[in-house]
Amino acid sequence: MPREPTAQEIRGRIERFQAELRSEGLAGALIVQNIDRYYFSGTMQGGFVVVPESGDPLVLIRKDAERAAQECPLPVEPLDSVRDVAARVRARFGEIPSPLGLELDVLPVNQAERLCALLGRVEIRDASRAILMTRAVKSAFEVEKIRESARVMAEVVEQVPRFLGEGVTEMELAARLECELRVRGHGGVIRMRGFNQEMFYGQVVAGHTAAVVSLFDAPIGGLGLGPALPQGPSFRPIGSGEPVVVDLIGNACGYLSDVTRMFSVGPPRNPFEAAFEAALAVQCAVVEAAGPGVLASHLYRVAVEAAGQTEFAEHFMGDSHKVSFVGHGMGLEVDEYPFLANGAQLPLAEGMVFAVEPKFTFAGRGVVGVEDTYLVTCGGVERLTPSPQVFRIVDAR
Amino acid sequence: MPREPTAQEIRGRIERFQAELRSEGLAGALIVQNIDRYYFSGTMQGGFVVVPESGDPLVLIRKDAERAAQECPLPVEPLDSVRDVAARVRARFGEIPSPLGLELDVLPVNQAERLCALLGRVEIRDASRAILMTRAVKSAFEVEKIRESARVMAEVVEQVPRFLGEGVTEMELAARLECELRVRGHGGVIRMRGFNQEMFYGQVVAGHTAAVVSLFDAPIGGLGLGPALPQGPSFRPIGSGEPVVVDLIGNACGYLSDVTRMFSVGPPRNPFEAAFEAALAVQCAVVEAAGPGVLASHLYRVAVEAAGQTEFAEHFMGDSHKVSFVGHGMGLEVDEYPFLANGAQLPLAEGMVFAVEPKFTFAGRGVVGVEDTYLVTCGGVERLTPSPQVFRIVDAR
Repeated sequence: MPREPTAQEIRGRIERFQAELRSEGLAGALIVQNIDRYYFSGTMQGGFVVVPESGDPLVLIRKDAERAAQECPLPVEPLDSVRDVAARVRARFGEIPSPLGLELDVLPVNQAERLCALLGRVEIRDASRAILMTRAVKSAFEVEKIRESARVMAEVVEQVPRFLGEGVTEMELAARLECELRVRGHGGVIRMRGFNQEMFYGQVVAGHTAAVVSLFDAPIGGLGLGPALPQGPSFRPIGSGEPVVVDLIGNACGYLSDVTRMFSVGPPRNPFEAAFEAALAVQCAVVEAAGPGVLASHLYRVAVEAAGQTEFAEHFMGDSHKVSFVGHGMGLEVDEYPFLANGAQLPLAEGMVFAVEPKFTFAGRGVVGVEDTYLVTCGGVERLTPSPQVFRIVDAR
Repeated sequence: MPREPTAQEIRGRIERFQAELRSEGLAGALIVQNIDRYYFSGTMQGGFVVVPESGDPLVLIRKDAERAAQECPLPVEPLDSVRDVAARVRARFGEIPSPLGLELDVLPVNQAERLCALLGRVEIRDASRAILMTRAVKSAFEVEKIRESARVMAEVVEQVPRFLGEGVTEMELAARLECELRVRGHGGVIRMRGFNQEMFYGQVVAGHTAAVVSLFDAPIGGLGLGPALPQGPSFRPIGSGEPVVVDLIGNACGYLSDVTRMFSVGPPRNPFEAAFEAALAVQCAVVEAAGPGVLASHLYRVAVEAAGQTEFAEHFMGDSHKVSFVGHGMGLEVDEYPFLANGAQLPLAEGMVFAVEPKFTFAGRGVVGVEDTYLVTCGGVERLTPSPQVFRIVDAR
């Protein structure tokens, strides 16, 4: 079996990253976080990837170096102890690149201090923007994995009517769908970069408990399972006519896709079907405006304007608490560039992948919305999530 | 329904924490991380808990303050913007407590810098040890939740024979057990404090793929689902006679329990039953030595010595890569104090809860072990995980 990603792909990523490093005046970067290390080496095994501003990277793996050597298409050097890192970097590059970029957006203070003590005198800067910019543009390999993740998800979303019925709890519906995903190879973990952000598969929630606000920075919170698990499904039985939100994140080989589809047991009460049509209209407006060169913030503005032309403007992206985005980049993490948010000055580029999730929240009644994952193509965007964009009514049994 | 935890319980936690702060010369602490914020306030809603070295804490919640007010037994003050935090702390305490403790073990560098900029001139120190010491001792309320988590897990472990058979993949077995846990209210997320550590329910793995080493700092890695998901179950079908490890973490209301039980389809090959008996002997030695005042490192030494008296010493806690612990504290996170590890100078105290997980790894063949969660009582320890400690043989079908 050929190694995936290939050496050519990893070299391409490194070269794009090096261009970002140079543009920020960094002499190199030391990559520590699991996801970034996997992205830049093809292995998540424990250790470091040191990327100089030009030339070959150094892949130092402590545990497990043998496994890493099977996974990583570049040469892997075993690292006996983290304490050796400075000596190994000097042995390869002559000196420790300075200024050196670290992942200061995710690296805890104590970890960063320990690393700095090991590295000795070197100027430390933040490499996170350069990393996120590089990762934002997906390769054909990556798009294929996201497509696969979305394809499996569409299969499972088709199963919702098997499990949904009056009196089924949000949790039971969630559990059955999670299991269907898992047996099809869902990786389980949903990785988020943001501090204090976490996600478990997504949000399978209905009626008024869907509209309960949580700390989670998203238009849907959910009642959850008590104060220590304050988002997502609860044990409330789903009633007929309630809007049922199936907002789930696929995970194929670590690559994520995000989709939201609406269901109800029997015809949904007013105004939920109309609100779904409104969400579709907003999504359509965003999709029509999207393409290479368009600013991410422009798409947010388009969404807000389109929502403003519906009768549900005041419910857009939250009721009492609104979130200030309508979409987010997707890949190995849920919260990648580009954010379709107010003030996001990033121009879209071919190969970027993002979810668009216009949602309307009706406090005490429910949430209605749609979400799909899109790929930026040369001429616009392509939808990667194949589920039919309909509000599906399940027979009351 | 009475609020859980009660105001009295939260005040008790704060008082114990304040004693830790004073012993470290800290004038106060600003709590930001979700789990710590929940622990010290009873709500995980977004914001800050400011704990002075004595007197009442200040609970500032941005999103959602209303929800927080329903959950938190202490007064909650709404916070409009994170930018107001310094002014609000000064308004309550006259000045910002200095030196001020932050969670430097989990707070990313950029987050910490943003916070420091908001707080202005104040001496920042690490509050993580004080937090972990406080959280290590569980209240009756917390023990009850861990017990509940372990009770549900035992129910599900009883279901293994329903799902296990020759040719069933590790993943299918894992998926079925995860679903059984979830419908019984498992919270899904397994929180870990350590940087780059993650866990999805646990490790349901068998035979040689169980013995595959991963970056994860545990005696069991697993093949997983490829380089980006390099631990836990794979799609390899389980064969007869293989040792099947069911290592799962329960989650009731955020509180975790950890258990490992062994299974096989048909009689296990040699030497797996003997290795299981050896693991039980090690666990028994640790349990007999455990109790208030005993150093956590002593229990690790007891385990290593007991393992040394078996014929499997060289396989103890890893084969080519050994981990340097035999147990870990449990509660809201998997990796709490006390660590039963080399050099851990922490004396056990009544109310501490930890898992003991002696395991033997046979590279290319399998992993065998046992794991239970224990509560330190006045006279020793009590096992909280009720599953029978047997190697269970499932009929080959």
